[in-house]
Amino acid sequence: MSMKISNYFPILDWGRTYKGETFVNDGIAAIIVTIMLIPQSLAYALLAGLPPQVGLYASILPLVAYAIFGTSKTLAVGPVAVISLMTAAAAGKMAAQGSPEYLAVAILLALISGIMLLVMGLFKLGFIANFLSHPVISGFITASGILIAVSQLKHILGVKVTGHNLLEIGQSLISQVPNTNVPTLIIGALSTAFLFWVRGNLKPLLIKVGLSEKLAGIGTRIGPVIAVVVSILAVIVLDLADKGVKIVGDIPKGLPPIAAPEFDMGLWISLLGSSVIIAIIGFVESVSVAQTLAAKKRQRIEPDQELIALGASNIASAFSGGYSVTGGFARSAVNFDAGAETPAAGGFTAIGIALATLFLTPLLFSLPIATLAATIIVAVLSLVNIPDIKQAWNYSKSDFAAMLATILLTLAIGVEAGVMAGVIISVAMFLYRSSRPHYAIVGQVRDTEHFRNVERHDVVTSPRVITMRVDESLYFANARFLEDAIYERALENKKVEHVILMCSAVNDIDLSALESLEAINERLKSAKISFHLSEVKGPVMDKLQKSHLLHDLTGEVFLSQHDAIKKICGNAFDTEIEFHL
Amino acid sequence: MSMKISNYFPILDWGRTYKGETFVNDGIAAIIVTIMLIPQSLAYALLAGLPPQVGLYASILPLVAYAIFGTSKTLAVGPVAVISLMTAAAAGKMAAQGSPEYLAVAILLALISGIMLLVMGLFKLGFIANFLSHPVISGFITASGILIAVSQLKHILGVKVTGHNLLEIGQSLISQVPNTNVPTLIIGALSTAFLFWVRGNLKPLLIKVGLSEKLAGIGTRIGPVIAVVVSILAVIVLDLADKGVKIVGDIPKGLPPIAAPEFDMGLWISLLGSSVIIAIIGFVESVSVAQTLAAKKRQRIEPDQELIALGASNIASAFSGGYSVTGGFARSAVNFDAGAETPAAGGFTAIGIALATLFLTPLLFSLPIATLAATIIVAVLSLVNIPDIKQAWNYSKSDFAAMLATILLTLAIGVEAGVMAGVIISVAMFLYRSSRPHYAIVGQVRDTEHFRNVERHDVVTSPRVITMRVDESLYFANARFLEDAIYERALENKKVEHVILMCSAVNDIDLSALESLEAINERLKSAKISFHLSEVKGPVMDKLQKSHLLHDLTGEVFLSQHDAIKKICGNAFDTEIEFHL
Repeated sequence: MSMKISNYFPILDWGRTYKGETFVNDGIAAIIVTIMLIPQSLAYALLAGLPPQVGLYASILPLVAYAIFGTSKTLAVGPVAVISLMTAAAAGKMAAQGSPEYLAVAILLALISGIMLLVMGLFKLGFIANFLSHPVISGFITASGILIAVSQLKHILGVKVTGHNLLEIGQSLISQVPNTNVPTLIIGALSTAFLFWVRGNLKPLLIKVGLSEKLAGIGTRIGPVIAVVVSILAVIVLDLADKGVKIVGDIPKGLPPIAAPEFDMGLWISLLGSSVIIAIIGFVESVSVAQTLAAKKRQRIEPDQELIALGASNIASAFSGGYSVTGGFARSAVNFDAGAETPAAGGFTAIGIALATLFLTPLLFSLPIATLAATIIVAVLSLVNIPDIKQAWNYSKSDFAAMLATILLTLAIGVEAGVMAGVIISVAMFLYRSSRPHYAIVGQVRDTEHFRNVERHDVVTSPRVITMRVDESLYFANARFLEDAIYERALENKKVEHVILMCSAVNDIDLSALESLEAINERLKSAKISFHLSEVKGPVMDKLQKSHLLHDLTGEVFLSQHDAIKKICGNAFDTEIEFHL
Repeated sequence: MSMKISNYFPILDWGRTYKGETFVNDGIAAIIVTIMLIPQSLAYALLAGLPPQVGLYASILPLVAYAIFGTSKTLAVGPVAVISLMTAAAAGKMAAQGSPEYLAVAILLALISGIMLLVMGLFKLGFIANFLSHPVISGFITASGILIAVSQLKHILGVKVTGHNLLEIGQSLISQVPNTNVPTLIIGALSTAFLFWVRGNLKPLLIKVGLSEKLAGIGTRIGPVIAVVVSILAVIVLDLADKGVKIVGDIPKGLPPIAAPEFDMGLWISLLGSSVIIAIIGFVESVSVAQTLAAKKRQRIEPDQELIALGASNIASAFSGGYSVTGGFARSAVNFDAGAETPAAGGFTAIGIALATLFLTPLLFSLPIATLAATIIVAVLSLVNIPDIKQAWNYSKSDFAAMLATILLTLAIGVEAGVMAGVIISVAMFLYRSSRPHYAIVGQVRDTEHFRNVERHDVVTSPRVITMRVDESLYFANARFLEDAIYERALENKKVEHVILMCSAVNDIDLSALESLEAINERLKSAKISFHLSEVKGPVMDKLQKSHLLHDLTGEVFLSQHDAIKKICGNAFDTEIEFHL
């Protein structure tokens, strides 16, 4: 493992060779991403229950931090839907939305999960994220999409709704329907309809009028900006704010305040659980986006360094009044399509957003909340992945069970309970499977030196000899299962004199498994059966040399299974064969 | 899986053919075990902080239940040292020793862990015990032995001591040394010395005077009975009870009271954690004793039925005023050596103990507690297994770490914390290893159809083709690691046109791994590299047929790796080889 400083600061690598031409490409991408990011940042801050400027703050310094530490050339970090929902769920448990405490908790969540990501990166603990299995992530994202869409309906209706799970939100929403504000509903419904139309129909239209596929794609992503501009104009011209339409209102002008988050030991400890879930979900989302884009250009990302980069981004966010960030798919894809070549594009985007917070916020005063809610609803409904549920059902019932449990618990109880239950179910099923290794009784393929499963091949065996091939490394989790399997075969038949364990697929034997092998040896010895090993791999043999097993073994260790059979059965072999199949 | 009723009631099998000759042998074994069991039952009840008769009660009905349900011919259940210590630790958290509540909690612990064992047996969940790895069990037993021995020193000194871990007990003990009762110390020290002498020297002596090895072994086990008888006589003759020597005193005469344990929902819930640990530790201890003895006669035990039998024994214990029981090594070995042939011997032992509670208890009135403590100390010091610690150190540092953590935490905090920490460390290390499967880049052994690891063998490869052989089934835990490994090899080299994944050791592909294979296929496609599979096993292929992977695959699925190389490299192969080693 190399400890080069540039491993931790990828900017030193790509920065050295930065060219003018690259600067132009990165700059153009940055302008397009900035335009797309302004309404998105406001919308996700709304979803997280935070003031709109917090979304903008989370899109400035975090991007600079990622540009310094990130290994993906095109990943764009910032607020995303699922993490915003999780922030709302976690902060909502500690304080009331809109209170200064709520904002402080949101900032602290970013800081703690940032520190966790950084530590995981420095200690190369990225593998922890692997225990979020695909069905759990997929089920969680689908359920989150539904939850988010439903939670935003209140803004479309212009009513107040509470709750953190589908039941609570649904009940509250239904009871509030009579209080619907009609002008808000009209703006919300029109925005939603327009954005759905953009998503489905604008791209082919733009291609028809002569734009390239790539440009048409980018044009489609700008759709929300059109909705924002038109609805601001509508509010101003028709004086809708006075008719009960909620608007964004006064966004504090100026750059984010640089300040250290609060340190309150008790609060930190109570946020640890939520922070670790936000950190890992954010990392999984980000890494999967980064890998997808990197592969398109035969580039690679370093998952452990990505942990450091995301950690730094979140810490930067917390120190500049922002909340949890991660790499988002939509904005990264736009960045990629718009021609970004280096992480510098992210840095330039940060400058763009900073300029917006300095000069653009007064223009957003009259932006209706309903329009932001519409952009969220249309964005998150694409997270709901029904084909994936069908595929899980078809492919594997146990994977389907994990997915269904995650979806139902996320909807019924909340995001954290859902994802935790999913992980526990997946790991439990994994441990269960690991505890029963695949093994086969093998026999010799006639006139060859090959040995195959007696149940699948036409092989010969001797009633005096049982050869068991185990197809996994031997660990504490499966060692006793193997013991039982051997006793079952060896002790049920009085003719058995030799048991051979064929270790061709055994890459490791831990202490528990060693103990099991010693127990097998002892117990077979009590029953006057010799215990042999064959085809033990080099590194495993080295380890066994350090134990008593080889000394106590009643039988021998054979280099090959063929040697074992030749030595044990000798010339008498032909007279004792049994035919299989 | 057969659902025969006799699978659940093994007594129906062996009872059908029960003969007079077997009856004699079982009867003799029962008499010997009964004699040995009386002082042991009293001593372990003392260790558990319970009245002496509770130990006797736990040695009656549980033995009958085991005789009905057990699959081991010679296992003897009853109170054992480690479970008694755990009972004291768990009950001590809920009530004061000596109070009726303490006794009620001890009985409830037996009931709840009995129900858990029964349920685990009915649902065939015995594999759960496999997650107690050998280093954890060994470390736990060693630490428990030390804790128990130290905790009994107070009875040798005749002082009062409190605490549940080594530090607390040690401090309390040292502060109490000045209060030592000298007659108690003399009895305790003499008993301990005598029992150590019996353990080390009596057997050879008995053999010398002409006893058989087996009889000499049994004679040694009766040692504690001699100590008990002599010390009772000493107390009576020398009037030691008046000189401050604590004696057992009045043991209620008569059979155990049959009564349903209390039902208090809150109490049950708060005992769940302790009960599950007691259940699993008890099961592991019992099964390992049963397997050792069964193998000596080429008999087999059924671990899942053992769960049912142990569950029934503990429930029977709870309903008859006893506490948690399990199979003990010493008494089972005596039972075996004394010639027990069927579980009926256990039933006869139960009758023996029942007779003792009816008629023998007045004789035990003057038995000094110090003598019982001496029998415990001598018995548990054999649990302390230093060679096992050395072996772990030599064999594997990670196993050693798990063992050391278990020992230190058990001593420093307590039995439950120790065993939980050990399990968590073992499972975490297991998950870590599982997340990095063994894989190899393989090449063709010249002029053969064999393919081997390029790092270990002299093979030829083509710069256009990368073949990766993965030596484990593909699960969510290792799928992303495989993805990274493939990207690292395939994307770093611009010449690569084909990647072949050789699946000869892959027994399963779960949904997460399928997703990873699809991602690999997509990302390699973006990089214009074809992705092939070779040597996919039948059942795995059946599963893949249900997915889109085979349809979307940019390459082919080859029956053998040789076919793959022949098709991809064709005649040009010879011109592009690179030599390895």
